[in-house]
Amino acid sequence: MDLNKVLADNIKNLSQIGSDPTGGMTRLLYTDSWLEAQKYVANQLTDAGLTATFDEVGNLFGRIEGTKYPEETILSGSHIDTVVNGGTLDGQFGVIAAYVAIQYLLATYGQPLRSLEVISMAEEEGSRFPTVFWGSKNFVREAKRSDVEDIADFEGKKFVDEMRRQGFDFRDESVPKRDDIRAFVEIHIEQGNVLENEALQIGVVNNIAGQRRYTIVLKGEANHAGTTPMGYRKDAVYGFSKICSEIIDRAVQVGDPLVVTFGKVEPKPNTVNVVPGEVLFTMDCRHTDQEVLKNFTEEAEAFMKEVAKDHQLDIAIDLWMDEAPVPMNDDIVATVEKAAKAEKMKYKMMHSGAGHDSQIIAPHYPSAMIFVPSTKGISHNPAEETKHEDLVAGVKVLAKALYELAYKE
Amino acid sequence: MDLNKVLADNIKNLSQIGSDPTGGMTRLLYTDSWLEAQKYVANQLTDAGLTATFDEVGNLFGRIEGTKYPEETILSGSHIDTVVNGGTLDGQFGVIAAYVAIQYLLATYGQPLRSLEVISMAEEEGSRFPTVFWGSKNFVREAKRSDVEDIADFEGKKFVDEMRRQGFDFRDESVPKRDDIRAFVEIHIEQGNVLENEALQIGVVNNIAGQRRYTIVLKGEANHAGTTPMGYRKDAVYGFSKICSEIIDRAVQVGDPLVVTFGKVEPKPNTVNVVPGEVLFTMDCRHTDQEVLKNFTEEAEAFMKEVAKDHQLDIAIDLWMDEAPVPMNDDIVATVEKAAKAEKMKYKMMHSGAGHDSQIIAPHYPSAMIFVPSTKGISHNPAEETKHEDLVAGVKVLAKALYELAYKE
Repeated sequence: MDLNKVLADNIKNLSQIGSDPTGGMTRLLYTDSWLEAQKYVANQLTDAGLTATFDEVGNLFGRIEGTKYPEETILSGSHIDTVVNGGTLDGQFGVIAAYVAIQYLLATYGQPLRSLEVISMAEEEGSRFPTVFWGSKNFVREAKRSDVEDIADFEGKKFVDEMRRQGFDFRDESVPKRDDIRAFVEIHIEQGNVLENEALQIGVVNNIAGQRRYTIVLKGEANHAGTTPMGYRKDAVYGFSKICSEIIDRAVQVGDPLVVTFGKVEPKPNTVNVVPGEVLFTMDCRHTDQEVLKNFTEEAEAFMKEVAKDHQLDIAIDLWMDEAPVPMNDDIVATVEKAAKAEKMKYKMMHSGAGHDSQIIAPHYPSAMIFVPSTKGISHNPAEETKHEDLVAGVKVLAKALYELAYKE
Repeated sequence: MDLNKVLADNIKNLSQIGSDPTGGMTRLLYTDSWLEAQKYVANQLTDAGLTATFDEVGNLFGRIEGTKYPEETILSGSHIDTVVNGGTLDGQFGVIAAYVAIQYLLATYGQPLRSLEVISMAEEEGSRFPTVFWGSKNFVREAKRSDVEDIADFEGKKFVDEMRRQGFDFRDESVPKRDDIRAFVEIHIEQGNVLENEALQIGVVNNIAGQRRYTIVLKGEANHAGTTPMGYRKDAVYGFSKICSEIIDRAVQVGDPLVVTFGKVEPKPNTVNVVPGEVLFTMDCRHTDQEVLKNFTEEAEAFMKEVAKDHQLDIAIDLWMDEAPVPMNDDIVATVEKAAKAEKMKYKMMHSGAGHDSQIIAPHYPSAMIFVPSTKGISHNPAEETKHEDLVAGVKVLAKALYELAYKE
């Protein structure tokens, strides 16, 4: 089997479905292109000798029974949905890689001892409805009907209606999660520039960073930029600049893997000749150690309050996302690392700074992730790219790891 | 004559013209409400015993000849136009105050020795077309046909067409400026909070601050907020925060009358989970001394470049407004101060941080300004307000100054 060509053809073909006129790809949950993509994958699964089935909500599975331990399942896959005008790798590469790797294993070694299974998850991005991880959270039975019952997309289309229109529905919440999963391995593009900068092919992911996201509003007084002496000002942007500058300085000092980002800054009235009376900004902070994350952000909060007081500003701090780090399973990580070594890849152990389905699945089933480099770290963008040889390298490591997990006693 | 009531009635009536449903006032150059306002003022001028005439571009004058020195004119007034959804005082108060003061002088003392003249200037705000001071610049013969020949408003209506639609046209540029003006006094709301904070009634303005306005663009690299280690970032907002924080610190240290404002901040992509790859921001800096203004801003520019270098950012600095300070005339300022003292007002000598018609007129004719307090420093807003007693105080000081200038040998 020509792994190289099969992989290239599959990426090319699947990328046609939901492709934007602008060059990107948009495949939002329960849209027609989303269903078309899942059906394309179902056909590929069948062609690869797997039994394809959908669950109630639209997660797609492709399974081959193990000869000796059919009740022990080794799972691999990722999500089929994209962001609006996204690239051709985020999500679907992990789905394609899983079935191409299994197809290769079946062609090379025949049926496995343990069952092998692909999962093409319905949704991870949260780009259509105000919900994320709908696919993985249903798989591990964490998703609740009540979470989505009343939500609608940006056009006002109800989640429930759209789900049913495509032939899916809520799962029976009384059915417990599966007990046959022995391992989950997800391969994904890095979405960062570490592997590229360090000229590596593979990242063996041992942790998904926890993250805290804040929205902060500083309120002062909007005044005329010419007629208001410095001493009579309550300049919200001045306060912001003190906060941003100091907290990033501190983060740099603390060092990797701590990251902190002030991504959104919206002053009011946002005009050249008015002292900004208000500014809304966000802080996104991540670390693989919950203690460090907690301490750093709490000290940041205290510092913000100090600055607000010094500058006579009111401050409202809203912590609206607080996700703990998710460690991967040591054994599965070791298996992946062994596979990378066996395939003679230049690799490193690393954490993921981005969120992935694995963070939902890892607390339930032993999990690990494999990263391949992202050119310039770009993702969620039509320019998203990974050299084809790096994609192939990733599939080889994945196949080797699945071989270790499913074919060895 | 009941100055109190005449003033109140005139403000009330003129504020009807161009009043917004939201409570503000919008009277843009060469619109119908603008013309209606000028015609209302023309009628009031006539009723006050003045001869009303328009110049070619739409500046309105009301004149009474001096009995002894008719060829020496004492001029007072301001502009009739407003910003979009502005208040009821910025501009028109200076027009009304001028003719109410003169009306009061005529009623009390009869005809002056020197000629007294009101000017209701066509435009100062630059709120409709990309041009400012069209009124005063025509009066002093600085405006050029070529400046506005090709400009249009936000709806695409051409300046020239709109001017002609209301019956006006370019002036004859071969005619020199008037040589009869001996003094110009403009009364205006402060648009700042100094008089209010210091519980004063009158500001005697001896200088209009020079100002420099910049737009700066810092360019780095937009990257994923989770997957990009701090060491691999080129964070434009981090660079901005260093610049803003340090330059405002320096300005505070230099002290009054230096002011510096970072009013507009626009990061890209402006999203919580992306390291901002770019930020556009403005710097507005003002001082009454050209040397200080020049040195401060040049040092600020140098500092910005340093920060850009340290943070691996590209920087583009655009100085798009560079106006020198305009000192008022010592004699006229002294006359206004004497008037404030004579009227027993609580006053202070001060500069104007905002731009005014006086800065265009002062280099041509001896000029001074009078400020009245602005409640909370608010202007360019429907909430713009000055206590009526403070408006009356202003008119009294203006009348006293005009008396000194026009009735005394």
